[in-house]
Amino acid sequence: MKLLYDGKTKAVYELDQDKCVLEFKDDITGEDGRIDPGSNYVLGKLEGKGKSSLKMSQHFFKLLQEQGVPSHYIDSDLAKNNMVVWKAQTFGQGLEVVCRFKAYGSFLRRYARYAQEFQPLNALVEVTLKDDERGDPLINDESLIQLGLLTERELEIIKALARKVAVIVKNDLALKGLELVDIKFEFGRIGQEIVVIDDISGDNMRVFKNGIQVPPRELSDLVAE
Amino acid sequence: MKLLYDGKTKAVYELDQDKCVLEFKDDITGEDGRIDPGSNYVLGKLEGKGKSSLKMSQHFFKLLQEQGVPSHYIDSDLAKNNMVVWKAQTFGQGLEVVCRFKAYGSFLRRYARYAQEFQPLNALVEVTLKDDERGDPLINDESLIQLGLLTERELEIIKALARKVAVIVKNDLALKGLELVDIKFEFGRIGQEIVVIDDISGDNMRVFKNGIQVPPRELSDLVAE
Repeated sequence: MKLLYDGKTKAVYELDQDKCVLEFKDDITGEDGRIDPGSNYVLGKLEGKGKSSLKMSQHFFKLLQEQGVPSHYIDSDLAKNNMVVWKAQTFGQGLEVVCRFKAYGSFLRRYARYAQEFQPLNALVEVTLKDDERGDPLINDESLIQLGLLTERELEIIKALARKVAVIVKNDLALKGLELVDIKFEFGRIGQEIVVIDDISGDNMRVFKNGIQVPPRELSDLVAE
Repeated sequence: MKLLYDGKTKAVYELDQDKCVLEFKDDITGEDGRIDPGSNYVLGKLEGKGKSSLKMSQHFFKLLQEQGVPSHYIDSDLAKNNMVVWKAQTFGQGLEVVCRFKAYGSFLRRYARYAQEFQPLNALVEVTLKDDERGDPLINDESLIQLGLLTERELEIIKALARKVAVIVKNDLALKGLELVDIKFEFGRIGQEIVVIDDISGDNMRVFKNGIQVPPRELSDLVAE
């Protein structure tokens, strides 16, 4: 299979004209020796990490299917550490759409003058550009539209989808006594339809249990038996 | 008079219960020895700079008065380098509202992957928090509202006012063969009314003539005889 993209935590191969295979890697991201799923730096490898992310993504993509939320998910193979998905077009070179239920991480660092740590937020959505070189800059609605990354209508659909999926994930985690603080999605177009792409794993969300952050791997074991 | 605030380019004194006096300083801002009105660092002093900024602000605030745009402006005294204004409440510790007609400066640095230098923008508005320590972070509409800095309605009023005033300034500059690339405003509340506050000078806008950026002082002489 042709390698289309080699990312920090996944590689993307072309399966056929319409489908891709995502290979989940064992690389972990973080900074200063501390694991941080939001980081742009690869810290090292952790045996079984790819499978763990895949297991959790499989769980959530199946949950989305059940709830009728469009995504790129077709099937996954835990033995092969991969997921088969529909090919989708990103918006520009990719947007990250964050949905926040509590003030934490980069939001808190930026707005520390006004936000308290863990202050409740009402499914607040922020969009950043995937651009490691420039630290994934935040972008507002007008700029997204005027730079031609998407239309006003597409932006509204994406925000509503991000909130909807975030609430589905939040509620599912809550059943296991886990609290979702924030979650990051990517969206793409398959033809005219806007769908959830990428993965939905511990790499893309911050989850707490009894006030302590749950590391991605442990999270996967708690979420997807 | 009681000193209320000592800023990078202005000091604010209390005149009475309802009014303040803005004293325009000779300090210039910039980085690496290069004057940049958008910078948060004071480079040094430039004799006559305060008067020059005041003269330009006076010109534009009078123009706004003529056009019925609400501002804090009451009167100014070029001999004393000061301006008398109505006391206004800032939103939080202050917001900066930027209106852009071309891609330049921080916008271009953030979105270089998608924006070309001087690419036309349709009076694009961005809001940043006044927070030197955190580099005046960009903030989106939802965050402004959820952090309680202003209401949705106030944000709409501010955006519309920013665009309106930016176009007034742009058209006035165009009469003198000058091109406005971007401009930064501050807004405040006087009672329930939202008004333009701070100054409207070369410190807050980037203006070009025949493709070359005009320094603030020269700009003041060209704009306000």
